[in-house]
Amino acid sequence: MTVWGENLHEQRNEAVRAIYPEGMHGAIARGIAEHLGGDAVVETATLEEPEHGLSEARLAATDVLTWWGHKAHDQVSDAVVDRVAQRVLDGMGLIVLHSSHWSKIFKRLMGTRCSLRWREDDDREVVWTVAPSHRIARGVAPAFVLEQHEMYGEFFDIPVPDELVFISSYSGGEVFRSGCCFLRGKGRIFYFGPGHETVPVYHHPEVRRVLGNAVAWAYQPAPSPIETSIAPMSPKGWFEEQPP
Amino acid sequence: MTVWGENLHEQRNEAVRAIYPEGMHGAIARGIAEHLGGDAVVETATLEEPEHGLSEARLAATDVLTWWGHKAHDQVSDAVVDRVAQRVLDGMGLIVLHSSHWSKIFKRLMGTRCSLRWREDDDREVVWTVAPSHRIARGVAPAFVLEQHEMYGEFFDIPVPDELVFISSYSGGEVFRSGCCFLRGKGRIFYFGPGHETVPVYHHPEVRRVLGNAVAWAYQPAPSPIETSIAPMSPKGWFEEQPP
Amino acid sequence: MTVWGENLHEQRNEAVRAIYPEGMHGAIARGIAEHLGGDAVVETATLEEPEHGLSEARLAATDVLTWWGHKAHDQVSDAVVDRVAQRVLDGMGLIVLHSSHWSKIFKRLMGTRCSLRWREDDDREVVWTVAPSHRIARGVAPAFVLEQHEMYGEFFDIPVPDELVFISSYSGGEVFRSGCCFLRGKGRIFYFGPGHETVPVYHHPEVRRVLGNAVAWAYQPAPSPIETSIAPMSPKGWFEEQPP
Amino acid sequence: MTVWGENLHEQRNEAVRAIYPEGMHGAIARGIAEHLGGDAVVETATLEEPEHGLSEARLAATDVLTWWGHKAHDQVSDAVVDRVAQRVLDGMGLIVLHSSHWSKIFKRLMGTRCSLRWREDDDREVVWTVAPSHRIARGVAPAFVLEQHEMYGEFFDIPVPDELVFISSYSGGEVFRSGCCFLRGKGRIFYFGPGHETVPVYHHPEVRRVLGNAVAWAYQPAPSPIETSIAPMSPKGWFEEQPP
Repeated sequence: MTVWGENLHEQRNEAVRAIYPEGMHGAIARGIAEHLGGDAVVETATLEEPEHGLSEARLAATDVLTWWGHKAHDQVSDAVVDRVAQRVLDGMGLIVLHSSHWSKIFKRLMGTRCSLRWREDDDREVVWTVAPSHRIARGVAPAFVLEQHEMYGEFFDIPVPDELVFISSYSGGEVFRSGCCFLRGKGRIFYFGPGHETVPVYHHPEVRRVLGNAVAWAYQPAPSPIETSIAPMSPKGWFEEQPP
Repeated sequence: MTVWGENLHEQRNEAVRAIYPEGMHGAIARGIAEHLGGDAVVETATLEEPEHGLSEARLAATDVLTWWGHKAHDQVSDAVVDRVAQRVLDGMGLIVLHSSHWSKIFKRLMGTRCSLRWREDDDREVVWTVAPSHRIARGVAPAFVLEQHEMYGEFFDIPVPDELVFISSYSGGEVFRSGCCFLRGKGRIFYFGPGHETVPVYHHPEVRRVLGNAVAWAYQPAPSPIETSIAPMSPKGWFEEQPP
Repeated sequence: MTVWGENLHEQRNEAVRAIYPEGMHGAIARGIAEHLGGDAVVETATLEEPEHGLSEARLAATDVLTWWGHKAHDQVSDAVVDRVAQRVLDGMGLIVLHSSHWSKIFKRLMGTRCSLRWREDDDREVVWTVAPSHRIARGVAPAFVLEQHEMYGEFFDIPVPDELVFISSYSGGEVFRSGCCFLRGKGRIFYFGPGHETVPVYHHPEVRRVLGNAVAWAYQPAPSPIETSIAPMSPKGWFEEQPP
Repeated sequence: MTVWGENLHEQRNEAVRAIYPEGMHGAIARGIAEHLGGDAVVETATLEEPEHGLSEARLAATDVLTWWGHKAHDQVSDAVVDRVAQRVLDGMGLIVLHSSHWSKIFKRLMGTRCSLRWREDDDREVVWTVAPSHRIARGVAPAFVLEQHEMYGEFFDIPVPDELVFISSYSGGEVFRSGCCFLRGKGRIFYFGPGHETVPVYHHPEVRRVLGNAVAWAYQPAPSPIETSIAPMSPKGWFEEQPP
């Protein structure tokens, strides 16, 4: 799997670098690796690399991709966005984090504006599990607290999630659908709210558990063989001859 | 339509009677009538009436039923619960209010425990619209405030709502799926959280608007003719002869 | 409301013109008008008009838009597609018909490939209601038959419908989710499978009833005032000052 | 896991016994075992055993239960039904097969009538995957054929499935939502249509694969610790003291 990071705040903002000396992508990768079996390969890629580190070959070898961006959504090339979208529709998992609600790739796959309310004012966020049998909630506390976090609030302009796993409250009174699953094409997508760059949220044990669970959920060892890149003319009886 | 009220708090508790001199069912009925067209007939029924006011004839003439109960769920006869359930499955709308999450009728139709967390401690509740295009959200503010209300919090042990219209936050930090639609059989069900007896919540204009919208949404002028009370043996070609 | 038609088959193919002397859009408009109240205004627009008949002013005045296209999806200008998409997200209803599953506007709003299997071989299609309490199923038979229709079959590469109203079978053995609702932004979208140009499907009474119901369902007299075109910074307590 | 079988047809009907000399439950158990890892324990239980083979101890040790019944739904004791329901709500998986759509346990958990149309007339059934990324569809063909099977058709009076995995067509023209997931309490439920007793459907390789996948999907190594059997009074700040 591949952890993609914009990697700009970490370079330009000392406070962020102090929290994430290996970059936010570094912390995300470690958090996921903690929760995957020992033979999982967790690599990273960043905006500044050629093709943002997401070449055809790299993506073809990626089964799950996580995405964190904020300041530079516009600098992500349309060609790469298109490539990632096709891979998701072909079965690659995608985990979209925090401010990436406004990334090109998320808006493309959702078809909506993906806007929300926000405030940086040291709100306390409480994340609540509302789908206890979901794979992504496995082992996660009924509620966990982020002592300081940016407020992200409703209305969040997304399609109705196919599965709603977490809802957050903020001390200012807002609520937010902060853990949302979407099935698109042959792929699985998870949006997760926590992840503001100025607080050590990706060092939080419950957040790391959610990331690990999300990757496990989004991973498919062998995506469906159903062909969706064309609209096949199908003569009568074609399915009788399918191999079992 | 019929507004059903347990009508016990109002008789036994002066503070409740002071808020609801016509009974809670009286206030609910007025709130709904405000929002329905002038020719709507809004009647009431209560626990103490014969058959709880829900005879076969009464139910047959009811297109939407609202339900508020709390102290006396167990006193509702199983025969009446069964009768109401059959009417819902046959197309009658049902609006389930507040503490009625633990009513026999709601648990029967949901199949789950319908438990939740609660606290009476003067929390401020903020009700958020998360389905702006839903009929029940029509004209409702993006967020409205109940200055004092009982806390009802997750995990709320209901099936995943078919449509989630409102989510509430509480000043204590909890969240609650407070506006939930369920389609069952040929009928439509709406659960709405607000309604604690010791605060004048059914006098609140936004709450009344939601009640009116919910009745409008749950109402069907002519429920589907599909027969569900039997499992019909259907010879080949039976549907060719259906009237158009 | 506005009925949009590509209007190419009707001009170029005599067989189609014989079935639809007023154009397919003409038949669709009449079918809808039959089922709406007498004061409904049903207008039409076609590809060849300036801006395809969908100027800013026209769209601003349109509360529900139906769309039928097939041969010339690529000739629809991206500017118009973008304009229609924004109107849907702002609350306009959209009814997407038959081969328009591959229209730019549908693919944009879905975010998936929208591909499917197909065959022109005189299959009999049977359309089944699977959501009897849905507004779009009101008065529609449990099953209705299109004696000859193009086969459209699964896998249909759409997001999971927010409400699945109809499923079709074909004499060749395929199935198709032929009546699908999607909520996007503040708008409502309905995809309906029937509509191949060489058979008189838009003269079929049940099809016309579905079209009328779909327009009634997608119509909102006053879309939500929630603002989604920006992501507003929201200071603490902002919602306390909202007008009721 | 435990495979429960009514085990009456097999004893009374030679034709059924010829197809299933080990009982239908025996074939189901073998089919599942083929697809689970080698250390999975697949046991069986039948109606005639004391407590139908589903004692408290047995159920406590069961992580997933499959259920096949037909002639004797009424002979299943209410106490056992209640016990199974509680276990599902506490996290046990439940796979409900074919004619068990009318079992007490399924109706209890669904809250609807669970009726459907049916016909025994040698229809060909084709089972279509409509959720290619779902765990239960893993490795399953886009469509597979049961040459002869009882027709089960819409309208199937169930709640809207939380996930719809398969839709079947029949040569008579009917359709059926034949693979349906429901999340209830902390448990996962899957209904699967195939399984008429007079045809060797549980020897079919794709059917066996679906059964194996369904058990893998419904299994939870450690159901959520969220308590749902009570409605806990929760003082302010209670969640601050939760262990991480």
